[in-house]
Amino acid sequence: MLNGSYCVATYRCFDEKADFRKKAESIAVGLTVGSWTELPATKKKEMEKHLGQVLSVDVHEPENGDPAERYADIRIAYPDVNFSADIPALLVTVFGKLSMDGRIRLIDLHFSPSFISRFPGPKFGLKGVRDLLGVHDRPLLMSIFKSVIGHDLDELGAQFYGQAAGGVDLIKDDEILFENPLTPIEKRVETCMQAARRAQAETRQKLLYAVNVTGPASGLAAQAKKAIAAGANALLLNVLAYGFDTLRELAADPDIRVPIAAHPALAGAIYPSPHYGIAASVLLGKLMRLAGADLVLFPSPYGSVVMPKEENMAIRDALLTERADDYICRGQDSGVEASGVGLHREVAAGGIDAAEARSAAGHGAGTPASADAVPLRASIPVPSAGIHPGLVPWIVRDFGVDVVVNAGGGIHGHPMGTAAGGRAFRQAIDAVMSGAGLTDYARNHPELAAAIERWGAKA
Amino acid sequence: MLNGSYCVATYRCFDEKADFRKKAESIAVGLTVGSWTELPATKKKEMEKHLGQVLSVDVHEPENGDPAERYADIRIAYPDVNFSADIPALLVTVFGKLSMDGRIRLIDLHFSPSFISRFPGPKFGLKGVRDLLGVHDRPLLMSIFKSVIGHDLDELGAQFYGQAAGGVDLIKDDEILFENPLTPIEKRVETCMQAARRAQAETRQKLLYAVNVTGPASGLAAQAKKAIAAGANALLLNVLAYGFDTLRELAADPDIRVPIAAHPALAGAIYPSPHYGIAASVLLGKLMRLAGADLVLFPSPYGSVVMPKEENMAIRDALLTERADDYICRGQDSGVEASGVGLHREVAAGGIDAAEARSAAGHGAGTPASADAVPLRASIPVPSAGIHPGLVPWIVRDFGVDVVVNAGGGIHGHPMGTAAGGRAFRQAIDAVMSGAGLTDYARNHPELAAAIERWGAKA
Repeated sequence: MLNGSYCVATYRCFDEKADFRKKAESIAVGLTVGSWTELPATKKKEMEKHLGQVLSVDVHEPENGDPAERYADIRIAYPDVNFSADIPALLVTVFGKLSMDGRIRLIDLHFSPSFISRFPGPKFGLKGVRDLLGVHDRPLLMSIFKSVIGHDLDELGAQFYGQAAGGVDLIKDDEILFENPLTPIEKRVETCMQAARRAQAETRQKLLYAVNVTGPASGLAAQAKKAIAAGANALLLNVLAYGFDTLRELAADPDIRVPIAAHPALAGAIYPSPHYGIAASVLLGKLMRLAGADLVLFPSPYGSVVMPKEENMAIRDALLTERADDYICRGQDSGVEASGVGLHREVAAGGIDAAEARSAAGHGAGTPASADAVPLRASIPVPSAGIHPGLVPWIVRDFGVDVVVNAGGGIHGHPMGTAAGGRAFRQAIDAVMSGAGLTDYARNHPELAAAIERWGAKA
Repeated sequence: MLNGSYCVATYRCFDEKADFRKKAESIAVGLTVGSWTELPATKKKEMEKHLGQVLSVDVHEPENGDPAERYADIRIAYPDVNFSADIPALLVTVFGKLSMDGRIRLIDLHFSPSFISRFPGPKFGLKGVRDLLGVHDRPLLMSIFKSVIGHDLDELGAQFYGQAAGGVDLIKDDEILFENPLTPIEKRVETCMQAARRAQAETRQKLLYAVNVTGPASGLAAQAKKAIAAGANALLLNVLAYGFDTLRELAADPDIRVPIAAHPALAGAIYPSPHYGIAASVLLGKLMRLAGADLVLFPSPYGSVVMPKEENMAIRDALLTERADDYICRGQDSGVEASGVGLHREVAAGGIDAAEARSAAGHGAGTPASADAVPLRASIPVPSAGIHPGLVPWIVRDFGVDVVVNAGGGIHGHPMGTAAGGRAFRQAIDAVMSGAGLTDYARNHPELAAAIERWGAKA
């Protein structure tokens, strides 16, 4: 049983023949107090509150007999008292040195109530962004510029207008558009927001423009404020290039009162390997929400840049869930499920705190899920890449209504032009929300019909 | 031939059957101007300076016939004009979206003269750190605390004194020691520097204490200055938890006049997979040096946390090399070697700029290496983990004299105590520098003899 305040890391650890229980104990000790068995009893008493605890060890013997695929899922609780309440400290504690220790992958994180309480999370979140846009009953629609590099303000403004006129809810900068002489951030914001107002006169709907804040790390807040002063009503950040704490600082800044969209640039260096790295649901899910992303982009399971469906669903759940047990580890109710045979087999093999581990793991299983909610606003999932109107029913089936449909080529490549591309998506969304079949709905909606003719509708 | 200023990324791209030449072209276009072939001729002329260039495509057909291991090494030049001169912008450009596009790994980077000129690099570097310590003719010796969490100032001070008394040149904080009530940074620095002065009265040698700067990203500079005001003469930073630009800012800060040691925490989430991520020589080598790390820690090839020898050597080279061609891509002399058969076979298959690619690649090969040096001070390699005195000859054989021998257990675990542990290492270093065999030298040096008895001397 856990007494005190802990954050819990879950690892998938591959090893052909390791005693995973022993490995788990050595992690729990090594990444906290450093040494344990040799400590004198009085010192142990003093150090106990700093000692990591093995919550469960769930060994998976490879079904195909390939020893290289033998692994264990290991859950270790780290006392909050060991680290400051920030993401760099947590990550360095649970996966700093350990990330370099063989084939090991960080697959989940649970936070203590006290740790998570230090994070305000998304300033707007799902509801806040919907409120800003005045849209509560359908998926949102985002579009991205066709090309940005080498284009001047007029060209960017024209591209922006085309997208806005089609009825999209959000437009984001390309993540590779940095501060540059052709379209410097203030001028870009002015030009694009002007185009937004022109379009708004026709579409009568609101629109958010997420402008890319770039440059030196310590200048990002100033850059964001400059953009906001020029009229920007949303921001885009390449979070992994700057670290999660930089996102947290922007999101927590009282003078930055616009939603922040997190771009997953560089994430592919971290999540895709089965044996190394950090799971996408942690990297682009829990940590982005904790750090305060109102919207989170990630590779969709539909397009050319593909992420497997189950990882997409895990990100969606991490961004949207309200179940406290998905995020929070309580002292005496760790929220950790019993891990079944694997655990008990390993626990039987015994370690210094096998009894505690059994108790802690068992406890989680026997306790009904808490009624409390995750104390963070939901972040909106934005599955991206390869999206065309024919996929909208599938996006809604997979993600529900609380999703941003995000398209580039699927809007700009529309046979009738960019604005028609936006309208085709809005029509597809309307069709799905009204329960009509896409092809039926297309009969009276030429833009949707043309899109389906061009890209098909996934059967 | 390249006209203008480019940074060059080298990728290893795995695919069972891709036309790698086509893939390379699509990267070069997709990550720069977005589209090319459909542009009108006048627009092409305008956009040409923004267009990425494929320098070489070197296909490796799998020798064992396993199609999953088919790959190509692809070199692409990105015009500087497309991104601001900072590491986040460069990384997001060359490996932002692309990192998520299948099995692809960033294995090298070369910078344009203009890009690299914006980076002051390490403020001290190899020579500067040696000057501070007054040691120019032997490997340096660093030690790390045995355990830090849960210990108070007295205990930390005592541990520090033991290490310092053994004659180590540098002592670093544990990377998991964050701001905490038991040993807050200012008090910790005061206590440890006091212990350093006491030891110095006996050892008559200088010592650097790298204190861990932690907490909110935007507060790190203030944290560092507070530590320096309290007497700290070096810093430790968990670079990857904060992003490279944060290191660059600390290193470039005129008020931070102490060396910075870069800890590789979290790097194992990025470098180890053969198919994904960023090579260690880039992540812990070139980018750390570019961002200004005076010392760079990484897993040694000797210990329990192992990195393959060739990766260690590649990091060493990246940190120490003076060969300009290892770092710099010039306009008309790209510094890129011809890639042999693979290139020509692929180039024959032809792409939009096959001629330029052939020319650019051929050019590099035909041009003698430039006499210019890398315009950055060298960073000192610190291979870490599993180091004991018996390994010193191997460290010097692999790394040369310009290395930090870094030990924890190999010092604290010495049978005669911590100070003897430091002395054993210094004796091992003296033995190697004098050309004596370790076991011979141990005859008159009981500390070294005890260490060899305990841990052996690698034969």
